[in-house]
Amino acid sequence: MIPHLPGLDRTIEAALAEDLALGDPTTTSLIPVHLTGRASFVSRQAGRLAGIDVALAVFKRVDPELRTKAMLLDGDIIEPGAVLGSVEGRVASILTGERTALNFLQRMSGIATATALYVEAVAGTTATIVDTRKTAPGLRSLDKYAVAAGGGKNHRMCLGDGILIKDNHIAALRAEGISLAQVVKRARTRAPHMVKIEVEVETIVEAQEAIKGGADVILADNIAADELAKVVALAKGKVMVEASGGITLENVAEIARTGVNLISVGALTHSVKALDIGLDYDA
Amino acid sequence: MIPHLPGLDRTIEAALAEDLALGDPTTTSLIPVHLTGRASFVSRQAGRLAGIDVALAVFKRVDPELRTKAMLLDGDIIEPGAVLGSVEGRVASILTGERTALNFLQRMSGIATATALYVEAVAGTTATIVDTRKTAPGLRSLDKYAVAAGGGKNHRMCLGDGILIKDNHIAALRAEGISLAQVVKRARTRAPHMVKIEVEVETIVEAQEAIKGGADVILADNIAADELAKVVALAKGKVMVEASGGITLENVAEIARTGVNLISVGALTHSVKALDIGLDYDA
Amino acid sequence: MIPHLPGLDRTIEAALAEDLALGDPTTTSLIPVHLTGRASFVSRQAGRLAGIDVALAVFKRVDPELRTKAMLLDGDIIEPGAVLGSVEGRVASILTGERTALNFLQRMSGIATATALYVEAVAGTTATIVDTRKTAPGLRSLDKYAVAAGGGKNHRMCLGDGILIKDNHIAALRAEGISLAQVVKRARTRAPHMVKIEVEVETIVEAQEAIKGGADVILADNIAADELAKVVALAKGKVMVEASGGITLENVAEIARTGVNLISVGALTHSVKALDIGLDYDA
Amino acid sequence: MIPHLPGLDRTIEAALAEDLALGDPTTTSLIPVHLTGRASFVSRQAGRLAGIDVALAVFKRVDPELRTKAMLLDGDIIEPGAVLGSVEGRVASILTGERTALNFLQRMSGIATATALYVEAVAGTTATIVDTRKTAPGLRSLDKYAVAAGGGKNHRMCLGDGILIKDNHIAALRAEGISLAQVVKRARTRAPHMVKIEVEVETIVEAQEAIKGGADVILADNIAADELAKVVALAKGKVMVEASGGITLENVAEIARTGVNLISVGALTHSVKALDIGLDYDA
Amino acid sequence: MIPHLPGLDRTIEAALAEDLALGDPTTTSLIPVHLTGRASFVSRQAGRLAGIDVALAVFKRVDPELRTKAMLLDGDIIEPGAVLGSVEGRVASILTGERTALNFLQRMSGIATATALYVEAVAGTTATIVDTRKTAPGLRSLDKYAVAAGGGKNHRMCLGDGILIKDNHIAALRAEGISLAQVVKRARTRAPHMVKIEVEVETIVEAQEAIKGGADVILADNIAADELAKVVALAKGKVMVEASGGITLENVAEIARTGVNLISVGALTHSVKALDIGLDYDA
Amino acid sequence: MIPHLPGLDRTIEAALAEDLALGDPTTTSLIPVHLTGRASFVSRQAGRLAGIDVALAVFKRVDPELRTKAMLLDGDIIEPGAVLGSVEGRVASILTGERTALNFLQRMSGIATATALYVEAVAGTTATIVDTRKTAPGLRSLDKYAVAAGGGKNHRMCLGDGILIKDNHIAALRAEGISLAQVVKRARTRAPHMVKIEVEVETIVEAQEAIKGGADVILADNIAADELAKVVALAKGKVMVEASGGITLENVAEIARTGVNLISVGALTHSVKALDIGLDYDA
Repeated sequence: MIPHLPGLDRTIEAALAEDLALGDPTTTSLIPVHLTGRASFVSRQAGRLAGIDVALAVFKRVDPELRTKAMLLDGDIIEPGAVLGSVEGRVASILTGERTALNFLQRMSGIATATALYVEAVAGTTATIVDTRKTAPGLRSLDKYAVAAGGGKNHRMCLGDGILIKDNHIAALRAEGISLAQVVKRARTRAPHMVKIEVEVETIVEAQEAIKGGADVILADNIAADELAKVVALAKGKVMVEASGGITLENVAEIARTGVNLISVGALTHSVKALDIGLDYDA
Repeated sequence: MIPHLPGLDRTIEAALAEDLALGDPTTTSLIPVHLTGRASFVSRQAGRLAGIDVALAVFKRVDPELRTKAMLLDGDIIEPGAVLGSVEGRVASILTGERTALNFLQRMSGIATATALYVEAVAGTTATIVDTRKTAPGLRSLDKYAVAAGGGKNHRMCLGDGILIKDNHIAALRAEGISLAQVVKRARTRAPHMVKIEVEVETIVEAQEAIKGGADVILADNIAADELAKVVALAKGKVMVEASGGITLENVAEIARTGVNLISVGALTHSVKALDIGLDYDA
Repeated sequence: MIPHLPGLDRTIEAALAEDLALGDPTTTSLIPVHLTGRASFVSRQAGRLAGIDVALAVFKRVDPELRTKAMLLDGDIIEPGAVLGSVEGRVASILTGERTALNFLQRMSGIATATALYVEAVAGTTATIVDTRKTAPGLRSLDKYAVAAGGGKNHRMCLGDGILIKDNHIAALRAEGISLAQVVKRARTRAPHMVKIEVEVETIVEAQEAIKGGADVILADNIAADELAKVVALAKGKVMVEASGGITLENVAEIARTGVNLISVGALTHSVKALDIGLDYDA
Repeated sequence: MIPHLPGLDRTIEAALAEDLALGDPTTTSLIPVHLTGRASFVSRQAGRLAGIDVALAVFKRVDPELRTKAMLLDGDIIEPGAVLGSVEGRVASILTGERTALNFLQRMSGIATATALYVEAVAGTTATIVDTRKTAPGLRSLDKYAVAAGGGKNHRMCLGDGILIKDNHIAALRAEGISLAQVVKRARTRAPHMVKIEVEVETIVEAQEAIKGGADVILADNIAADELAKVVALAKGKVMVEASGGITLENVAEIARTGVNLISVGALTHSVKALDIGLDYDA
Repeated sequence: MIPHLPGLDRTIEAALAEDLALGDPTTTSLIPVHLTGRASFVSRQAGRLAGIDVALAVFKRVDPELRTKAMLLDGDIIEPGAVLGSVEGRVASILTGERTALNFLQRMSGIATATALYVEAVAGTTATIVDTRKTAPGLRSLDKYAVAAGGGKNHRMCLGDGILIKDNHIAALRAEGISLAQVVKRARTRAPHMVKIEVEVETIVEAQEAIKGGADVILADNIAADELAKVVALAKGKVMVEASGGITLENVAEIARTGVNLISVGALTHSVKALDIGLDYDA
Repeated sequence: MIPHLPGLDRTIEAALAEDLALGDPTTTSLIPVHLTGRASFVSRQAGRLAGIDVALAVFKRVDPELRTKAMLLDGDIIEPGAVLGSVEGRVASILTGERTALNFLQRMSGIATATALYVEAVAGTTATIVDTRKTAPGLRSLDKYAVAAGGGKNHRMCLGDGILIKDNHIAALRAEGISLAQVVKRARTRAPHMVKIEVEVETIVEAQEAIKGGADVILADNIAADELAKVVALAKGKVMVEASGGITLENVAEIARTGVNLISVGALTHSVKALDIGLDYDA
């Protein structure tokens, strides 16, 4: 079963609609309607699986009479040559859905694979890898689902499930003569009571001010590792600290060792490298 | 003016809807409704611009009273620090639209930037860089628009604006005892008369068979450069030849020098590296 | 300007669509197209205003050339006879939009009016009146906006902007042999880090267990005032306490005096009494 | 089977979408995917049932594999403790749909319950209780279905299935020097031939004029019982008479005894008191 | 101004979407973005105009900056060569919208033209020409608007704005042993009070039975002119009589002279002959 | 199985929505919910079948529990009295879907029937009958599917699956001093490489110029048969020739004998004569 991903039906429908705007004349011209067969998703690379149920759902949407089967689960480690799932029934329907199904599966597995590398890199530290809202337009919930499949944790799903006071909020209010501490207090008073308040800071002084103002989480943006450790010390385990900005596979372990609670990596979703997966026709 | 991109309004609306599902309580809590200001898109990297009009349209959708201005045009070369465009009006509206606008702009400019590198790499040859249908689900027309902004040319927009007989079509029919030449002839008879017929081949023998069958274009998939040159010779300038599979910035020039007409690069759209662009608040 | 209410355009469009499924033959038969005039929203009752901008937006949607004007702001106290806003232009358009506009305005002002009574009843205590997810299907964001206009605060907008472990979650897990404290710990580990965890309890013992498990907020459901005070004492100001269940205008002050932080009132939105407002034609 | 309610699928989908905009992290964090169980709708109050099939359809929409069963039919009298229906299958799916299902069921049963009280109050007279277009935006067909379940009859579903000349139509045309009788005649000539013409009047003189003009139905708005009886006499059984305005459970019987054919009660749908119904987990 | 046609925006959007699924590469390839010009709708035939505002609205939807102007009004008589309206602005936008605009205009004017011929043919009789629900799927309101522009009157817009008991209703109930008169009485009791009841009959005996049962309108289906006159006599002016079935321009006058009130012509909308109208570029 | 027609689900849903905007009170009032029965589509005319699966799908959409069966296939020749398909189950559901199902079936079979007549008229020649984009707004893919069922071939589905340089493109560019040959060359350079380029011409001289410019197809608009033969000679079998304009059943054979490859007939879809098909209740 696919977890309840908000809007998944519509996303699949939209993806098929853009590919099938004029139907599939190649397949219609060539493949007899009653010809049946089977095809399998096979990975050409090692990585982490995400999106197999989504990809199979694409086929069911093209033709509800296709029979689909997942061989592995989202989150599973995959080796080159691994068979991920299969689809059986009308060949015409399989060929019509192939590209759209692969587009979901390759992107999502690419995200999971990259996430898993970051998670592995911080193993043994207290840091958790989290994503950002830097997702492909329209694919927010799928992109974030893939991060979770790769072992990461999701940060805010949208602008509304958490208060995150960013540089531009602070800049706009500073221009009005309002200090960072005042900004945080204003948020504390007016924001919904069920969400936490995170504040972006660029210096230790700002971090102090934000903590004093009552922040629940400090977002330390582009702060070097040694300074980060000081922010962690300030937070004393009572306020969470998130590192962000310029995180790479090379430097993430060093960042993690500063004791931060969270490390957010925009590249997980804004710079996705598709995992190489094919659909092989089973002769 | 934004060129007529099919479904653009809906794509922007969907992207905003997923970010604004619960409104923007951070901004609502902090920013006075009547506070006005200005912010500018600034590139942190060199590259090629695409999506500036789309990004500005996001702001107009959030608040029709915002005033927007593009400083550069899609397709323009950009240097680090370049100001790409600006938005002016209610600060609350600017902050609410910021992330969604950037998500479009960074992805599209990333695609254009990568495309331009490939185009440059084949300069002086007869080869044209083209894209594939390996786009992010729901973003087909934007992804392809960005390829064009980067100097590439678009291959099929969907399954219907060209006949492309792929490996799995051929495999399924071969299992029924139908030869490649027969497949191409069948397509010739039944396909719409306004579109061309392209046939995927993996060997010179298949290329010969496809040309005999009447193909307009040969898609030479994963064929080494020296063999590719032979396919080009077979085609004699009457049939177009497209190279695909495993194309990288390192090998694309060599491929181009074989005399192929087209080189398709899936990575342009399936493995996008976002261009680093920010929105700076103008104090 | 209307605050950014998620989905407002669609809600207005849907409401008009159901009333105008067959057009408005009464008006079309009777009213000359070019006849112009003016009409005003007038309250027949005292109360609290909410929805005036929404109601006026209905008219703009029927006919963009209508000119509208709000005389009062959402949240304002209104007396019988108060003129809330006006619309001017084609009489046919005004008559076509009248009922739909009033349906929004009467419901929203009804919600704000009831909320204001509860807020007033707890004045001088530390308790805040909050709403619930017991809203009319499809009207979640408007119903909650009206609560805020009446001086209340919004609880969760949806299932995702806060963790609320309810009786049925606990019952289902208890049947599996999982204790309340274990449930809360499980949530603590797996839930998003930006939202708080609230736990529904029915006894002091459960409240203790929830606090020990790490709850951020205790939802004391149907607990009598004297017992509630004990829950508040347990919470020691470190954990918030919300009272719910059977709250009426008669008993809300007594509940508030126990020192609870929040009192949620389902009736604010599930049992709305429309405020009596009319649209008077200005002869 | 649910009667064919226009737009029901979309209404359910929209209601779920607003609650599940970010999924259901509480349930996802806590409840194992494969845990199954059963829950039942139980009424805490006496009343009249409406919406049980709609509520069960909500669960099927959340998870098509849930099995649902209605124990009672819409329109049935219910006592406190009555089991209305049940749902069985994945516990996670049941918990995710609970609130949305209840929001439909409680509102609709509330409407049916109030309607039944009015219908009972006029038993033995010739008057029929009818509803109005004062429904919650977007819920027109469900609100009216619930009135019918409570024993009431539906007035116009929209602006197009009947001609109803209201006070503001008459006011606008009177300002142009057109008399009430002329207005009715104009409608007679131009309106569709399959619908009846109803005219709102506030005095006996106006009623006479409307009847002379050819009205099929007289809407006597806010006319006292003794005057109403005179309107009924004027109508002589050839023209229907509908009473409206200020109808309450206290005065409805007196109004009915005047011999009017119809009594419309806006409060049935604009001021709904939800029926108290819960979903009990069957341990 | 376009009269409020339910769903017009969506209908135009859907029509453009199907033509512009892949954009307009011919125009994009050829026409410079900033080239401006003007084009005019010119009729090649005599007829009756309908849809000019709809056609011009298509252009505004393609490009809101186009300037449009109607030279004639819907319902006007047009001669060959008549200039109906014009559009001015970006040439690319005009060319992109041309076909879709013409598809609306030619169909609607074709309907109006045919209707006008029928209306003229019954001039001087008491009969009114009405349409049916035999419209092109999705174009109900536009098709019926065009009938009205041609001088006809609209019958039911949908299944809900009138009760029409058809042959299959009667056949299904007769199989249950329920007589025609009983059927009509059942409808009288249960149907909404604001709509009239029409009954389809095929013989005089059935007509008598329907009138006795309380029908408001008799639909005499495929009854010869001499028999029709007897039905009219039975109706005595108290019940309306509608003739239908096999109506042509040749026999409609004879049918009209029987004294029927209404003559419904399915061919007006199910067998439309497009009016020949072109869009001429103004050099 | 219905071939994959883009947007079919939505088209059926929209058609039902416009007919069922207010439900079906006639059927609801009269037909007991549990009454079951059967009805069959019967042709009253000879012709060619198209749309039987679409019509049956309408019933499944009204009530998924209806059982449907096609007796003939789209494309089959039908005689008067032929039974095309049947539907069985709840009588109420059958009656509710009847008109909408027939509206699809009658239009589509009308198109197929007319197409078959044209195809038959050119039998023995090399000419193929093709359609145009002059389809009913919103019904593009269904109209074109019906042409194919009648034995015709589809021209462009939309503006994007072929380049067609029409009179107004040429006129606009000629006004800028650009010759026809230059126009064609510009298209050759900029247009997508997978589609062919067709050029509309009105004289032999223009045909020559277009061929020289590199056109793949010549659209000879309103050119008399003897001149047409000369265009065919010019094309020498290397460029396709399409005749259009003023084609009728009377002159189509003469046009075909000129040796043109394609004859396009706008009337196939812009001036449809519905095939007379009824739904007979099986007593």
